[in-house]
Amino acid sequence: MTGKKKSAQASVEAMYRVFTVPEAPDSTLSRIDQNISQNLAGFLQEHIVAIERDLAEVEKDFADPIIPEKPVFVSEQAQFLLDKLVANSVHTASPAFIGHMTSALPYFMLPLSKIMIALNQNLVKTETSKAFTPMERQVLGMIHQLVYEQDGSFYQKWMHNPQYALGAMCSGGTIANLTALWVARNRAFPAEGSFRGLHQEGLFRALKYYGYEGAAIVVSRRGHYSLRKAADVLGLGRESLIAVDTDDENRIEIDALRDKCLELQRQKIKVMAICGIAGTTETGNVDPLEAMADVAREFGAHFHVDAAWGGPTLFSRRYKALLRGIEKADSVTFDAHKQLYVPMGVGLVVFRDPSLASAVEHHAQYIIRKGSRDLGSNTLEGSRPGMSMLIHSGLKILGREGYEILIDQGIDKAKTFAGLIEADADFELVTRPELNIMTYRYCPENVQQALAVADPLQAEKLNASLNRITKFLQKTQRERGKAFVSRTRLEPARYYHFPCIVFRVVLANPLTTREILGEILEEQKGLAEEPGIQEEMGLLQKTAREVLKKHQPDARLA
Amino acid sequence: MTGKKKSAQASVEAMYRVFTVPEAPDSTLSRIDQNISQNLAGFLQEHIVAIERDLAEVEKDFADPIIPEKPVFVSEQAQFLLDKLVANSVHTASPAFIGHMTSALPYFMLPLSKIMIALNQNLVKTETSKAFTPMERQVLGMIHQLVYEQDGSFYQKWMHNPQYALGAMCSGGTIANLTALWVARNRAFPAEGSFRGLHQEGLFRALKYYGYEGAAIVVSRRGHYSLRKAADVLGLGRESLIAVDTDDENRIEIDALRDKCLELQRQKIKVMAICGIAGTTETGNVDPLEAMADVAREFGAHFHVDAAWGGPTLFSRRYKALLRGIEKADSVTFDAHKQLYVPMGVGLVVFRDPSLASAVEHHAQYIIRKGSRDLGSNTLEGSRPGMSMLIHSGLKILGREGYEILIDQGIDKAKTFAGLIEADADFELVTRPELNIMTYRYCPENVQQALAVADPLQAEKLNASLNRITKFLQKTQRERGKAFVSRTRLEPARYYHFPCIVFRVVLANPLTTREILGEILEEQKGLAEEPGIQEEMGLLQKTAREVLKKHQPDARLA
Repeated sequence: MTGKKKSAQASVEAMYRVFTVPEAPDSTLSRIDQNISQNLAGFLQEHIVAIERDLAEVEKDFADPIIPEKPVFVSEQAQFLLDKLVANSVHTASPAFIGHMTSALPYFMLPLSKIMIALNQNLVKTETSKAFTPMERQVLGMIHQLVYEQDGSFYQKWMHNPQYALGAMCSGGTIANLTALWVARNRAFPAEGSFRGLHQEGLFRALKYYGYEGAAIVVSRRGHYSLRKAADVLGLGRESLIAVDTDDENRIEIDALRDKCLELQRQKIKVMAICGIAGTTETGNVDPLEAMADVAREFGAHFHVDAAWGGPTLFSRRYKALLRGIEKADSVTFDAHKQLYVPMGVGLVVFRDPSLASAVEHHAQYIIRKGSRDLGSNTLEGSRPGMSMLIHSGLKILGREGYEILIDQGIDKAKTFAGLIEADADFELVTRPELNIMTYRYCPENVQQALAVADPLQAEKLNASLNRITKFLQKTQRERGKAFVSRTRLEPARYYHFPCIVFRVVLANPLTTREILGEILEEQKGLAEEPGIQEEMGLLQKTAREVLKKHQPDARLA
Repeated sequence: MTGKKKSAQASVEAMYRVFTVPEAPDSTLSRIDQNISQNLAGFLQEHIVAIERDLAEVEKDFADPIIPEKPVFVSEQAQFLLDKLVANSVHTASPAFIGHMTSALPYFMLPLSKIMIALNQNLVKTETSKAFTPMERQVLGMIHQLVYEQDGSFYQKWMHNPQYALGAMCSGGTIANLTALWVARNRAFPAEGSFRGLHQEGLFRALKYYGYEGAAIVVSRRGHYSLRKAADVLGLGRESLIAVDTDDENRIEIDALRDKCLELQRQKIKVMAICGIAGTTETGNVDPLEAMADVAREFGAHFHVDAAWGGPTLFSRRYKALLRGIEKADSVTFDAHKQLYVPMGVGLVVFRDPSLASAVEHHAQYIIRKGSRDLGSNTLEGSRPGMSMLIHSGLKILGREGYEILIDQGIDKAKTFAGLIEADADFELVTRPELNIMTYRYCPENVQQALAVADPLQAEKLNASLNRITKFLQKTQRERGKAFVSRTRLEPARYYHFPCIVFRVVLANPLTTREILGEILEEQKGLAEEPGIQEEMGLLQKTAREVLKKHQPDARLA
């Protein structure tokens, strides 16, 4: 053989090897694999570097756009990933990582995920998923039952009925919301007379045929940004997502909702859907769903509930009443990778009426033929992994009771944390927890006193200064790597709706303790003393003193 | 403690245990885990039952819609999954499973997936993904470079530029196609004068402002069904997906495409996008991309290429010319869980011009704030897993050379299989392989002779009979569990466009051998002898004899 031929032969053999020869038990990758199985917490602790490296620095390790010509050894890539990727990833499972909606996962999720990936089923059709399809239908049925509580005969009739689907499995809440609103839009403009339906003829002709000037989705100001994205994708335009004011508890104002719907009606704009929120992303509040359902019925609108976060509250006997009215929703979004404690990324939408999904039904010749059991006919996505296996296992292994404990403890913990904040004169609780999400900020006692008496201009000055401080504290704490809270912007009525940056915490990790919460506050207090923020802090104090002086002219005499 | 309290305490402890105590090394789940690591092929072989169980039977194991009140032991659920789910799943990795686009995976994908799931990053924002974000940007850059071959300075400028994205990572090809067409639609009707753009004001006002009666997506008849779904979702209506005729090789007819665009133009319908296909799902053909790019330019249409299947052909020096013109596309869809050999479900779209993604840019206050590096601002999905880690590893560990071998061998194998079919008088090759997908059917020699001379009515009768036979053979072979080919419906010109059901095979599994292919044909021949199909076979033969008799009146004399 010539050298060239030999090299080609070697390449072919190397390629075959990765498909036929399992990783040796003592290889880098096998050792990581075992390490994760035996001690996940230790693995994450050991390999993720706490102190944040600047992203611009990290980018240097991922700068080459050229796909390498020659194969790299598995061990070499494994080591690269450990040193450059894992080391600089985020310890989302850490009990002190309370800034976003990711938590520690139950241990059993890891080996189960491995089975799922080893099987590599494709849920678009039964020919590539077999038993996974009935299992997914059961999972949709279980969540449907949790929400709508229909009786056994209902599920016997519909759950495995190939012509129907009780919902759609999705890669996450965004696609679930989009699917629900897609259904709503198509059903708002159905076939009639000479019109073949919006799904066939499109929005332009639909509005013309039905004599509307537009179609709108109505939701509170606290609606998730995926709804605006959906309004864009669906061709309604982002401005067709109509935001309604909320009360002091971040819940939609029912009167304002009704007024808005009436106004839209007058403008000949079809109220296509009203969205209730069960667990606002930033503050964890729940809309008055029951009253919203009434308004939706009044205007003939599809009633969707985005329960991506709060849906599993239904597991809790103590708190499920917060979601009263959800059973009147036409569709409900659940995220499994949030409070069902399943790995990233899976969500789902369930439909009260099993015929709803038909509004978006699609078929093809080589798969999802009419009459088949294939789940691909009702999903926005095509090929999809068997993530429902992980939901199924979570629901079985934790049971309703297990999830109830998780929900109850999360909400109780949020209340505890709110108590800690209120007990500390230098912190301000911005939104009180209803579920397990809340917001607060660092705000020295005298600044709080000044804010209490400040006029709009003074409040703006104080809040602008506080915003810079909150941003600094949040960023610095994240960079130090011991703990993480996120930040967002709210417009509290008590500060004349000035946009205030606040810390946002999500208390869903069962391993987060009261001690850890206390330490997070202590660290933030400590950071407020750091040199980098003293100039701003001085400015803040000066403004506060001026405000207090003006409003208490006799303070010096006291 | 009372009994009730004790039980509550036990439940809390059980819940904590799954979050804190790793599975014991000798537990059912750990043993499965190790078994998969050491011997994936053996695991699948041992646990998946070859003979198909009726789905109605399988459904009985997944019939209960009630979430259990009490937790179930992990070992119990693991055993349930093994017996009821794994046993009745599909052996997609089998070298004899050549019916769909799933293949065996490289071994290293399994432990790498475990690392990915253990880290549980969320790519929507860097705060929950850190180094995963630059890595994903690099992966998008690598595929961009593979397609568009820009120079180093281009990638240095754009790849990690927080204001831009070279593409979007998606859960699969469907979302990738939808994202591309979403971009195309929004860019077709931009802000101008008093009009704030389709993305803001919606399709209805966009068409009115620009004076159009509609907007269309043009693609060949062989376009993937996800494009029709996209036309529906985007508000254009399914009828706005305009299907153009193909030539005998299933490639779009350029003249017909131009004519169709002219016709749409006359009807005041905006040609919003023209889609080329690089690897039709059913027949594996590639459209004349270069010529299509010219037509797109002529009509000012976005040129999208759906290379979900065929994209990786670019790795092959021998076959990449088949995709000539792809570099002129505005956007290109790639599926990673297809020919990049990554587990289900990840796909992506790349944009030639880095500013394109801005047409669908979204922001929110608590994440993906303006100016952040967060990738969530340009994706349709929100929360997403770190699947790009698997693509990155595939590209590194296999290298361009490795993927080239996979592509070349797949296409060569398809040609080999086509040869086997042509050499066997009782099979008919329906579509010749261009890439590694092809179609054929069982068709006894004399029936082929009859078809060659049949008039339309006779051909219809023969083909209708053959359709029933093909369906029987495909279904029975699948049920027996030794091998699997899929089936689809084509309208061959030589049979007067009568819809013919055909076997469809996809030759992407590197472990599929010539012997296996021979055995598949042998089994199909054997099945054609089975009692269940003899009546139909008799009918077919009778029709064939009649046709031949009519057309060869002197045959008896010969």
